[in-house]
Amino acid sequence: MTRAHIFNPGPAAMPLPVLKEVQQEFLDYKGTGMSIVEISHRSPEYQEMQAETEQDIKDLLKIPDGYHVLFMQGGGSMQFILHAQNFLIHRGAYINTGSWATKAEAAASFYGETYELASSKDDNFSYIPEIPASGTWVLKPDTDYVHITVNNTIHGTEWWQFPHFDVPLFADMSSDFLSRPVDVSNFDLIYAGIQKNVGPAGCVVVIIKDELLRRARTDIAPYLQYKTFVEKDSTYNTPPVFNIYFLGKVAKWLKNLGGLDAMYEINKEKAGLIYSVIDESDGFYKGHARPGSRSLMNITFNMATPELEADFAAEAAKQNLIGVKGHRSVGGCRVSTYNAVTMDDCKVLAKFMRDYQHAHASRS
Amino acid sequence: MTRAHIFNPGPAAMPLPVLKEVQQEFLDYKGTGMSIVEISHRSPEYQEMQAETEQDIKDLLKIPDGYHVLFMQGGGSMQFILHAQNFLIHRGAYINTGSWATKAEAAASFYGETYELASSKDDNFSYIPEIPASGTWVLKPDTDYVHITVNNTIHGTEWWQFPHFDVPLFADMSSDFLSRPVDVSNFDLIYAGIQKNVGPAGCVVVIIKDELLRRARTDIAPYLQYKTFVEKDSTYNTPPVFNIYFLGKVAKWLKNLGGLDAMYEINKEKAGLIYSVIDESDGFYKGHARPGSRSLMNITFNMATPELEADFAAEAAKQNLIGVKGHRSVGGCRVSTYNAVTMDDCKVLAKFMRDYQHAHASRS
Repeated sequence: MTRAHIFNPGPAAMPLPVLKEVQQEFLDYKGTGMSIVEISHRSPEYQEMQAETEQDIKDLLKIPDGYHVLFMQGGGSMQFILHAQNFLIHRGAYINTGSWATKAEAAASFYGETYELASSKDDNFSYIPEIPASGTWVLKPDTDYVHITVNNTIHGTEWWQFPHFDVPLFADMSSDFLSRPVDVSNFDLIYAGIQKNVGPAGCVVVIIKDELLRRARTDIAPYLQYKTFVEKDSTYNTPPVFNIYFLGKVAKWLKNLGGLDAMYEINKEKAGLIYSVIDESDGFYKGHARPGSRSLMNITFNMATPELEADFAAEAAKQNLIGVKGHRSVGGCRVSTYNAVTMDDCKVLAKFMRDYQHAHASRS
Repeated sequence: MTRAHIFNPGPAAMPLPVLKEVQQEFLDYKGTGMSIVEISHRSPEYQEMQAETEQDIKDLLKIPDGYHVLFMQGGGSMQFILHAQNFLIHRGAYINTGSWATKAEAAASFYGETYELASSKDDNFSYIPEIPASGTWVLKPDTDYVHITVNNTIHGTEWWQFPHFDVPLFADMSSDFLSRPVDVSNFDLIYAGIQKNVGPAGCVVVIIKDELLRRARTDIAPYLQYKTFVEKDSTYNTPPVFNIYFLGKVAKWLKNLGGLDAMYEINKEKAGLIYSVIDESDGFYKGHARPGSRSLMNITFNMATPELEADFAAEAAKQNLIGVKGHRSVGGCRVSTYNAVTMDDCKVLAKFMRDYQHAHASRS
């Protein structure tokens, strides 16, 4: 087998050592004579595994006391609903940085009043709105929380400086979760589908401040309450055992690598290889995101024509470079350089991009 | 490695040939150079796999035209909410056959009026209420649907004859899904968490009648609408790829076995081995479910004292017989004989039970 260079936007590349470990122990989890998919979520083996995964996430993100780490289902889409169901009493403020941010507000609007606090829609979401000189944005009265989307997978932008508010700050970190250090104390609610950087689709990690929980509505069905997941230790019903188990392995892999500081340095270098090609291409590759807002996870660019972009993607695929086509809703090209994409993958892609440019620029 | 005899209530035993196949191709899905957990849900490989899984489920259950098969997240607990959110307009009728049935109605009651149409609570849910001589129960006016729980994991009962109503019939089939043939045309909505008989926790299969969809509310968030899953072919957001993939393998395994008729025969024989021990034990093992309501999936029984039951479970574990303890909410003993539990597993357990009885009955 030749392993592909995987630049998929999610589900995405996973660390090869983790894949091998999962494969190796798939028929017998820790000498139980059972596969990890067969063990009960009420067994000591499961409970220990979940607790360890939780602790490893706390260690990696240096989560202070007063927060809970939860494992839920339904992806970011379900969190778009739950954050509002639990905490939208008067009005929620949303900063609109792209398709997912738009969807978050749209889903929340079923549960109460929402408003757009800032937006980068005017320039096709190519940037993260600048924090006002005063230090932050002015909120409407009785705003319950502010919601931001930290990494914008489709448009390729990422927040590099976080605003502060007098009200709770909620963040969708689905696509850059555990890719860099983040000061969790700046947030009251963080959620992240694991299928980009840290595991197989089917689990969402939620980090929630205990203080925030006191404001939560309790007149909704128990399964929809974050409180229930805190009280039942994420096992109110059967959790997605395999997905959490795999996430736990990735967390260990990150720790062994040196933690999030180390991962961040690697991710900067990886993305830098591709951004350099774009910047040095004399406009052959036109980066979509403004330099100060560039994502280290999703690198978006356009070429002269959609036909050229299609040819580029097809030629890349022939070289075993997978997943470089842009999102179906915006077109162009996108390469995702999540945690498990290797430096070598990025070098091969960078070389391919340069070669492709030379071959095509000389023709024109 | 010695493989355990797995009688877990869910997550539960999976077919060993499927586990081996998953393990074998875990690093390279169909020559893509990617693990199944790395492929995009927008890729042709995924789409083909999902479509095939859907078709195999249709084939196995002989689902007539006019139904859709969906893959969702959140387990039965989320379906307790969704069926009501989508279809509870005036009032919903519930037949209460145990803990999960009770939870289904409790969750639904957040969305409108519900009522108990029948119940077996009077005898600790040891039976399935008998269909009245008139042929069915009389409903209150404007009842939108009737909801039943087909197999009751905790109490060990199962419906063997289904009532007919003039209104849609909804069924939670989580714990006997694909364990026997079922006439799907009798139902309008079927849902089943896959973690008992057919896959790793983290996916729910929903079978929904197109006609029913026309009654669905459209004023709720799109992610909560069954309609959205139909229109977006279960990929409105990222589905739990690995869990669906594994389910697909189990569906193929069932087909190769001879389909649900064959599986049903095997399941009857397996459960029969254990029920025989109970029935021939002179009351040493006291079956909880009444004979006509006995589940083929979960066999529940009590012994003289909780201490004896605890000793029994501990001795069983020493013989590598895993998961024979009763549910924490009701105590006693429970062995689950889902699809992937082998005839040999059941023979070993039956022998252990007889030996245990002889050793202990002679002492007393």
